[in-house]
Amino acid sequence: MSNSKITLSEELQRFNPVTVIGAGTIGISWTTLFLAYGLTVRVNDPRPDLKEVVLNGIEQIKPTLKALGLPTENLTDHLEIEPDLERSLQGSAVVQENGPERIEFKQELFSKIEKAVTKETLLLSSTSGIPSSEIAKGMKNPGRLLIGHPFNPPHLVPLVEVVPGEHTEVQAVNDAIAFYKSLGKEPMVLKKEIPGFVANRLQSALFREAIHLVLEEVVSMKDLDRIVTNSIGLRWAVGGPFLTFHLGGGKGGLPAFLKHLGPNLQSGCKNLGNPTLDESTVQKLSNEAMNSYGKVQIEELENKRDQKQISVLHVMNNQH
Amino acid sequence: MSNSKITLSEELQRFNPVTVIGAGTIGISWTTLFLAYGLTVRVNDPRPDLKEVVLNGIEQIKPTLKALGLPTENLTDHLEIEPDLERSLQGSAVVQENGPERIEFKQELFSKIEKAVTKETLLLSSTSGIPSSEIAKGMKNPGRLLIGHPFNPPHLVPLVEVVPGEHTEVQAVNDAIAFYKSLGKEPMVLKKEIPGFVANRLQSALFREAIHLVLEEVVSMKDLDRIVTNSIGLRWAVGGPFLTFHLGGGKGGLPAFLKHLGPNLQSGCKNLGNPTLDESTVQKLSNEAMNSYGKVQIEELENKRDQKQISVLHVMNNQH
Repeated sequence: MSNSKITLSEELQRFNPVTVIGAGTIGISWTTLFLAYGLTVRVNDPRPDLKEVVLNGIEQIKPTLKALGLPTENLTDHLEIEPDLERSLQGSAVVQENGPERIEFKQELFSKIEKAVTKETLLLSSTSGIPSSEIAKGMKNPGRLLIGHPFNPPHLVPLVEVVPGEHTEVQAVNDAIAFYKSLGKEPMVLKKEIPGFVANRLQSALFREAIHLVLEEVVSMKDLDRIVTNSIGLRWAVGGPFLTFHLGGGKGGLPAFLKHLGPNLQSGCKNLGNPTLDESTVQKLSNEAMNSYGKVQIEELENKRDQKQISVLHVMNNQH
Repeated sequence: MSNSKITLSEELQRFNPVTVIGAGTIGISWTTLFLAYGLTVRVNDPRPDLKEVVLNGIEQIKPTLKALGLPTENLTDHLEIEPDLERSLQGSAVVQENGPERIEFKQELFSKIEKAVTKETLLLSSTSGIPSSEIAKGMKNPGRLLIGHPFNPPHLVPLVEVVPGEHTEVQAVNDAIAFYKSLGKEPMVLKKEIPGFVANRLQSALFREAIHLVLEEVVSMKDLDRIVTNSIGLRWAVGGPFLTFHLGGGKGGLPAFLKHLGPNLQSGCKNLGNPTLDESTVQKLSNEAMNSYGKVQIEELENKRDQKQISVLHVMNNQH
């Protein structure tokens, strides 16, 4: 896609307009992406500086969207700032919720939401940890509720984990997939609800060992990061862990790999670390992080990273 | 770098010639890379079909080197096939060993090697698991011995883990770094010997959870792979796990991240899986792997992956 005028695609028409609840980092990122795809977006949040925060956030994200090839001219033409929850929901086709990560809060919020929307409205929560079966307990008709958990930030990283609950109708899952696909995302449906879903669990598993290796002084934080970008990071950008080992098993594929290296893998896993993040450990890690990365402004590091990220995404898209 | 004639750089002259011991996948990959950088390479291995295996291997790797921008014309001009260990070592500046992963084997091998080389010869082992302090036990003068563990395949993936043992001289570590850097690699020195070194430990930690999620039927193998390539893989290709979370903590960086999400991370880690790779589990995983990836030839999958990998590497090199 190359930058042109903002237009609402045919596929997205039935998902218009969208209500975004919660104007934190994730909510503003979703908002900006939705706007670039021509959707009318109503942003709802009780914060008094809502308009300012949203407009500033959109301005910051604009260059990234442009670099991704998305149109950014007149981006806020279809933006509505609506601090009143009920009004923000009137006639919306989709709700993308990004409120605080507390079960009771979300239960209460969605019981209010269902009263203000139609029975066709697709109800999506960005939660990274709360299963929709829990959120649904405050609702009368949770058939259209499910999780659409993005990997941060949603305007840049393709993955959206789509996680239906016990109560979710099949049609709602299909609609969520269609919605995210029409936005250029990669929705992946999980077959079961599990705390942390998939991407964050995998991330935590690796991060736990990363912390262990730094605490054991095997390697510095900065060196560990460079080890990852120069090996498994590169590998997993182009093929997941199973495919990587399938191709690491010679002509026999993953079965041969598991047969020959499985026992090593198993015994190796017994030696993996399990550090405790107590106060002094957090302090130690924080100090090293600031020594490693604290000299450069976060924004500068972020811009540099995002530029590389966009280049890598372009490569991947061109080779699909 | 763009394809041109093979020349030996000034930095590499003191590392010429090189003996490669063991003509398996890793040994042949090293051989081909060394040749492209103008080094004279003596390949040693007791297998009767040595010449054929090496020449075929080099032919297969050639297109990848070419795509990486390395010269491949007359690639085998400085290749020597030498089935006799002692003769293959005469006057060599560097030995890169890739033999079987058995302690006794390597102890015996290096005790033979040290008798045939000079005291200046740099002795590098590609082992992925055996510390050089163990290998050194069979040697009289192990000061020049250390680990140079590549991430497979060494001609493509930049990382080389450089791991000195108790016995390794500082100069040998510096020489190993200089050698690998002159070959376009990213040598990373570990501060301590630890089983599995760093990259493979991190890989195992994530893979263990990946297996758990597939066995628990949260997600299919293929979907898990796509989740990784569309989130953490992309992320870790451009920034390691610490930098990623440093940029995920808002303006407060990693300290803020650990403060706010540390407790969640800690409790989340308690729920991570620890599957046992018994025979029926291996069978189950093998079946799913063949159903997911078995319909396409390994070589075809590998070529496709390597092409993407090269494109990503180009992007990263251009943005250093």
